[in-house]
Amino acid sequence: MSELPTSAVIDLQRAHRSVRKFLDTPVTDAQLAAIIGAAQHASTSSNLQVWSVIAIRDAERKARLSAAIGNHAYVTHAPVFLVWVADLARNAELIKAQGGEPATFHLIENTLLSGLDIGIAAQSALLAAESLGLGGVFVGGIRNNPAVLSAELGLPKYAFPMVGMSIGVPDPDEGTGLKPRLPLTGVLHHEQYDGDRWKPSIEQYEESYEGYFAGQGHPGRSWARTVAKRLGTIEGMHGRHTMRDSLREQGFDSE
Amino acid sequence: MSELPTSAVIDLQRAHRSVRKFLDTPVTDAQLAAIIGAAQHASTSSNLQVWSVIAIRDAERKARLSAAIGNHAYVTHAPVFLVWVADLARNAELIKAQGGEPATFHLIENTLLSGLDIGIAAQSALLAAESLGLGGVFVGGIRNNPAVLSAELGLPKYAFPMVGMSIGVPDPDEGTGLKPRLPLTGVLHHEQYDGDRWKPSIEQYEESYEGYFAGQGHPGRSWARTVAKRLGTIEGMHGRHTMRDSLREQGFDSE
Repeated sequence: MSELPTSAVIDLQRAHRSVRKFLDTPVTDAQLAAIIGAAQHASTSSNLQVWSVIAIRDAERKARLSAAIGNHAYVTHAPVFLVWVADLARNAELIKAQGGEPATFHLIENTLLSGLDIGIAAQSALLAAESLGLGGVFVGGIRNNPAVLSAELGLPKYAFPMVGMSIGVPDPDEGTGLKPRLPLTGVLHHEQYDGDRWKPSIEQYEESYEGYFAGQGHPGRSWARTVAKRLGTIEGMHGRHTMRDSLREQGFDSE
Repeated sequence: MSELPTSAVIDLQRAHRSVRKFLDTPVTDAQLAAIIGAAQHASTSSNLQVWSVIAIRDAERKARLSAAIGNHAYVTHAPVFLVWVADLARNAELIKAQGGEPATFHLIENTLLSGLDIGIAAQSALLAAESLGLGGVFVGGIRNNPAVLSAELGLPKYAFPMVGMSIGVPDPDEGTGLKPRLPLTGVLHHEQYDGDRWKPSIEQYEESYEGYFAGQGHPGRSWARTVAKRLGTIEGMHGRHTMRDSLREQGFDSE
């Protein structure tokens, strides 16, 4: 890859690893303001700004949230746990104040737009955190139990807990490395979609995947088997097969 | 904000503006590889890698895509137009090759997960591009007409065109500035959601919003009215009210 153009930003992006073990060092309010402020400057569909983020530091609340989604040390021991919330509640109030109605909030387009915009904002926040020497991990597991999350956080109608994120100073003893990804040719197409594009490289990818996990003390893994276990069975959804009901309960009918 | 910690990354993030006018300078394959490679290193839910991206440079194809979504010069004149595709087709083949079935692909959780992961990847790509002196804009408008997009790009079942992105060297004559966002206090909550948090600052925000657009030659605008027009009426959806059918046609039943 040495011939490709690069930058300090790209170097940092390419060095990304999910951090699940943290030192006890707190994340300050100033750090948090810098991180979330950076996220606010990222793109937002039609400037609708359809998200809020809740910063949780209280140990008992973190423990309750963690218990609700399967008990994870990277939630309870994170100096700060962020919950990224799809938030159309502000927009609903603005519309009603003008005598209007939230006439489109039941549509799946707005559920999807919220997901996209939260991906954009949350990734911006994580990279900002990484640029300050912090680290973190996305926690999709909060969608295992949206009802408990919504109650614990006091979410109103039109607010839905989309994804979590643990942030803190990385514990240097954790020792995870860079998880290999599919070769670029497997995901980048030209002019039209080519369904065979990833196939010639899959064997090479499986080798690097197995090698990565063997180095972490878990030999014999296969990406294809992991995918099949995660997406090929309802059990692999860890409760998320009822997501449509969960969305509906918070006003995201997704029709 | 001078007391907040910062970094070169955060400075770049805070300088983000959407670029819709480009010089004729091409975006090279090496630049594209650097940009998409950076995006691949970002977080992906359970390492499922559920996206592909299609790079379109052909002038006639760009013109057809642009015509399908309302004719935008920032699509036809972009040196490269990227279409970010939710791609479960690879995963489906991997599962079937092991004798399994894509038993969860009909669930809205996987539609939502694809949206989140594309937000993460696409934002990573845009920031990587900005770090190389390029600029760009997200084009959610491709969801105005997913059927034509899917046909033009030859998308199979389990592949859906989620969001577009124009990339190129910014035309310095465009002259857009930094669009103001809600104050940090309006979106960052502590411990629990506070529905009143944004209200004290909304008047100040409306002033900065009006000021920004007045500076662009469009005085008298209001964020509240923009939100009401965009989300308070079916017309504001520009065709996206049928998104659930469009998703279903590509295998994303979203149940």
